[in-house]
Order: sequence, then structure tokens, then C-alpha cells
Amino acid sequence: MKNTSTYLETLIREFSKLPGVGPKSASRLAYHVLTLPVEDVEVFAESLLDAKRHIRNCMVCGGIADQEICPICSDASRDNGSLCIVKEAKDVITIEATGEFHGRYHVLHGLISPLDGIGPGELNMDALEGRCRDGSVHELIIALNPTVEGDATALYIARMVSPMGLLVTRIAHGLPVGADLEFADRATIARSLECRVKL
Amino acid sequence: MKNTSTYLETLIREFSKLPGVGPKSASRLAYHVLTLPVEDVEVFAESLLDAKRHIRNCMVCGGIADQEICPICSDASRDNGSLCIVKEAKDVITIEATGEFHGRYHVLHGLISPLDGIGPGELNMDALEGRCRDGSVHELIIALNPTVEGDATALYIARMVSPMGLLVTRIAHGLPVGADLEFADRATIARSLECRVKL
Repeated sequence: MKNTSTYLETLIREFSKLPGVGPKSASRLAYHVLTLPVEDVEVFAESLLDAKRHIRNCMVCGGIADQEICPICSDASRDNGSLCIVKEAKDVITIEATGEFHGRYHVLHGLISPLDGIGPGELNMDALEGRCRDGSVHELIIALNPTVEGDATALYIARMVSPMGLLVTRIAHGLPVGADLEFADRATIARSLECRVKL
Repeated sequence: MKNTSTYLETLIREFSKLPGVGPKSASRLAYHVLTLPVEDVEVFAESLLDAKRHIRNCMVCGGIADQEICPICSDASRDNGSLCIVKEAKDVITIEATGEFHGRYHVLHGLISPLDGIGPGELNMDALEGRCRDGSVHELIIALNPTVEGDATALYIARMVSPMGLLVTRIAHGLPVGADLEFADRATIARSLECRVKL
């Protein structure tokens, strides 16, 4: 059944294009918008446009920034010696949320995936090489997902920087904290055995 | 941890104001917006503003409309004799989706709820009385939720129209189709017994 308003139909269709929003949720969100004061809807619409128009990639790390250089790259108190390599800009925020890392980041904007036609040339890899060459970095921490593409990309980076004599590490993959061995999948248990640490 | 962009922060905050959208979903939606072409974001923002600016309440039924009168009220092929009373505009679409009802609707925009200070005067009740008085309606079908407020509102309407000699019915409340008696709550089973029908 179509709605009794084409404007509402359009809004529901727009909401349902968002990831994880099905037709029912889209409809609920659209009706919610109708109940809001017009000023609130204007603020929401403006925030969408502002985000799209003003956010850019940081010239240094490739992460999200309002200025040419993001607040993390321009923060003089951070450690230039360790560089954490992530797939996407949002991974930066995820790692920052732990409060455990005080170095710099480098965002690849993807992973090597020959099946999808993505090679190193499609990623933010040249800039990474440049940053590694400049001499201040002594450890690369690879924080990519433990998938085939993540593994391939990690290996590529390790080979790329091997002539530079940097320490290259990768975040540990194993049982999540609080998890039960009984319910872990075989691949995770295998990784946790392989990457076991001395007590 | 704050994001590295205040525009992104704002957008995440805006998304998280929507019903059913928590901080994690809001963040995912905001990052998704950044990946869209600017034209798509403009269309989305415009659809929000258009919906809010152009949608109004139908002068006849109180439902959602782009014009003064909604497509259902202006559809000459529908039966003027039965009037289905619903709480909200979206209930009209829910009932229309069944394809089982061919009469007209009346949207109350709420239910009587003395605790929230909502009496008949706060609802679209005068217009309902006017429509009942004009002589064409012979059955009122009350399609309100089986809650205390729904029951109170149904009773109020039944009393209001009783001098007019209309047939007043209410949609059946009982076990949902496909449900199991074992898992139904007591109140539902009690209603389904009370409203039992002759085979």
C-alpha cells in the first residue's frame, strides 16, 4: 500500500537506503520526523550536508578531518615513533576509545583484495611508505581485521618496509576477553594457540 | 573519545536522536553518509525538509496528506457508510495494507489519557462527531489498541454516538494468527474467550 503522501513515500525510501534500516524502521523514522519541530529537522538536514561538504581526509594519515590535518596528526604530544595502520577512518576512533595507544595512525582506505580488483595502488600505501622512510617511525602496528584480505595486506606492508629495518607488529587475534573456549570457532582457537604468549 | 571532526560528531548526535538508533548505529549511519556521493546526501536532506514542510493533516480525516484532502478521502469509489477510527495517521496505512477495508478513516491523533492530561478536547473528536451526524455513516469501526487508553477512548466514542443510532464495532482482540496458546499472555487469552465467535 502506498502512503497518502508522496513526500512521506520519498522520505521512507531515503531512510530505507541506510544500512541496517528495513522498510518498517524506515517508516517509523519517517513518521518520527513528522512529529519533530521544523527547526530540529532543519538542523538534522544541515548536519547531513555539512558533514558531506566539510569533512575531508587528513593530508597526513588519511583519517577524517575538518582541516587539512586532523587533530591526532597535529597533536604534538603524541608519539611519532609508533604508527598504527588501520583499514578505515572509523577504526581510528575505535582504537582511540581504548585510550591505550598514544602514537600516530595511518588509514589505508581498504584492504588488498585481488578478487575485487583492489591492489596496493588503490590504497593509501605510497603515503605510508613515505612516512616510514622519513626516519621518525620505529614501530608499525598493523591493526587490520584477521581476514584473508587483512592477512594479505599485512604481509604486503611487512615486505614493503622490511628494507627499512622497522619493527612490524600486528594486534593479537585470539579469544575475546570474557569469552568461553566452548563457544569459540576453530579458526579463533587455532590463532590463539599459534599466537600464545609466555606467562 | 571524540571524533576527529566536529561535523561528524554533530551528525552522529543528530542520528542518535532518532528512535531506536543508539550511539553505535548512529556512528555507523554517519560514516555511511560520508561514503555517499554528495548528490545523494542532498536528496536525503531535501526529502527530510520536504516531508516536514509540505505534509499536512487531511481536513476531513486528519490523516497525512500533501493536499488539503488526502487521497483516501477524495477517492469517490470508497464506501462512505463505514468509518474506521484509528489513533495515528500511520495506522491508516497499516490497515490499508491488508486490503480488507474499503470505507473511510478518522484519525484521532491520540487516545484519552487523563494521567497525561489528554481528554476528548485534545483529540480530533469534534470532527468525528460532525462526520457521524451528517447521515452517511452507518457503522463506526473502532481500531484502537487494546490498552486502558484505547478502551477508555472506545467507550467515550460509543457513548458520544449512541443517540445517533449508529452501529459501533471494535476490531477483535485475541490470539494472533499462527500464535500458540501456550505462549499467549493471560490478558490476551481472557479477551479471546470473552470475544469468542460462533462457528
